[in-house]
Amino acid sequence: MKNILVTIPVNDGHRERIRGIAGGCRVDFVPRNEVTEAQVAEASVIIGNVPAKMIRASQRLELLQLESAGADAYIAPGLLSPATVLCNATGAYNRAVSEHAVALTLMLMKKLHLYRDAQRAALWTDCGSVSSPVGATVLVVGLGEIGLQYAAVMKAMGANVIGVKRRPGPCPAGIDQLVLTEEIDTVLPRADVVCSILPGTAATVHFYTPERFRLMKKSALFINCGRGNAVDSDVLLKALQEGEIAAAATDVTEREPLPGDHPLWRQENMVITPHVAGGYHLAHTHERIVDIACENLRRWMRGEEACNVVDFETGYRR
Amino acid sequence: MKNILVTIPVNDGHRERIRGIAGGCRVDFVPRNEVTEAQVAEASVIIGNVPAKMIRASQRLELLQLESAGADAYIAPGLLSPATVLCNATGAYNRAVSEHAVALTLMLMKKLHLYRDAQRAALWTDCGSVSSPVGATVLVVGLGEIGLQYAAVMKAMGANVIGVKRRPGPCPAGIDQLVLTEEIDTVLPRADVVCSILPGTAATVHFYTPERFRLMKKSALFINCGRGNAVDSDVLLKALQEGEIAAAATDVTEREPLPGDHPLWRQENMVITPHVAGGYHLAHTHERIVDIACENLRRWMRGEEACNVVDFETGYRR
Repeated sequence: MKNILVTIPVNDGHRERIRGIAGGCRVDFVPRNEVTEAQVAEASVIIGNVPAKMIRASQRLELLQLESAGADAYIAPGLLSPATVLCNATGAYNRAVSEHAVALTLMLMKKLHLYRDAQRAALWTDCGSVSSPVGATVLVVGLGEIGLQYAAVMKAMGANVIGVKRRPGPCPAGIDQLVLTEEIDTVLPRADVVCSILPGTAATVHFYTPERFRLMKKSALFINCGRGNAVDSDVLLKALQEGEIAAAATDVTEREPLPGDHPLWRQENMVITPHVAGGYHLAHTHERIVDIACENLRRWMRGEEACNVVDFETGYRR
Repeated sequence: MKNILVTIPVNDGHRERIRGIAGGCRVDFVPRNEVTEAQVAEASVIIGNVPAKMIRASQRLELLQLESAGADAYIAPGLLSPATVLCNATGAYNRAVSEHAVALTLMLMKKLHLYRDAQRAALWTDCGSVSSPVGATVLVVGLGEIGLQYAAVMKAMGANVIGVKRRPGPCPAGIDQLVLTEEIDTVLPRADVVCSILPGTAATVHFYTPERFRLMKKSALFINCGRGNAVDSDVLLKALQEGEIAAAATDVTEREPLPGDHPLWRQENMVITPHVAGGYHLAHTHERIVDIACENLRRWMRGEEACNVVDFETGYRR
């Protein structure tokens, strides 16, 4: 009898669905922080981000279905046996992360961070002019599903959307203009909003250089809901302090948690959320993760090819 | 020669436009706080909210074009001569106020107010589950242009929109269901978001009673970007303190400014902005006010009927 180890959060309905698919297998539901090395070693399928160090190239492991989009911790050479198929949960986070990015954009446009600060001091104070999505040029850097969903909402609110992507291709619906990543410097000076949804790859580390911040409008708003290491926190701080851009909001930082003594925390025109855009914060995300896991479990039972298979070159879905 | 007194903010382009229309008249541009009683008494047309007490039923005043949507201060019997046509700037604020309401809604949904508080303490802390516009039932109370524009964005983000209006009529495009104001209690229990854009009339004072807050879901979010006196601040505070609703955001309060010692300021699940959704905070609003004023000035020059004429019964556009 093969073992299936499930470490993602599940409710009764999820348990029933998984057991229904895995007829003839033993299914163990174990919270991630209670998993033992023995359970990992005996599993043919693992659903959930078990600690990477526990895997030890298990020969028995046929399918590792992550609950995250990022797979960085699992693609190190030798960590997984060549026989193991690694799948991620790309797609599960689209709605949650794109909405969080829209919320952060509007918060900055309407200066709601400054009004929240004023409220804490019981101050009925006018913080001055605001901006609007209508007619704004919004640069969406990284055109995966999250970027496309963010773009669609901004466009529905009246923005002119420029999409930035790595590889040439047709302009997706809802994008007014498409430019290649290598051409980004030609459009940065036109952007009222730069929203970064770049994945964490070698090519995107410190993508936003001091020169790129200088190319932006002094009134530009910078949003990061992709990977934290696309921006050096000190470079971002300097761009804000020196007025290269007007304000920024980020859900991710290069070091997480951002150290408590980092001055970015106290920069007034900086909004920080602690990597919560994704996760299990939206019920929909949880359902989508279970959906992806169930689909791959079903395929594995039938000997079919998995979906959401991770490309070890990029760390992302093939 | 007739006098035209302009007290709204104007730039060189605006001055030129107004002078271009008002050929043969004397045009004075005077900031509102520098206007004299003599200037008001001599004006045939006033563009701007001059202090009501200065008007003294001037027989000379033919057109008073306000820069606000509300005209409450100018409809008192005897204040204006029967010969004066009173016009407001309804329409100028639609974009700014509807966007502010969307921004507040997303702020509450994504708990960005709590994350801002955590940021101020340099705390990388997870504030738990969030909600999404997708599939949310959003009640839009007051279906003027602001309410309709708010509804359109929430619908584009996936919400199910119920519109609430005073008079029966066809269901406007973008509204999934229409109910009459007198029937609101039948739909309040279904709402995930209640967004109030009610005008300030006798019928809307303290519209949101304790009973109505009790009818709402405990998870409901309440937004007010209409008039402050639709909600008694103490009733709202109690609804938040007792968990009748999950959170609220308001741009308006019954007393403005909200007194510094009012506990609403310090209620964590309450977001307050100081009546800034409208005003001149968005450049677009300013242009629209000038557009309306120029249109009515043009009509007055030609002896045509004005637009945006205030109904003295309701205080709003006829």
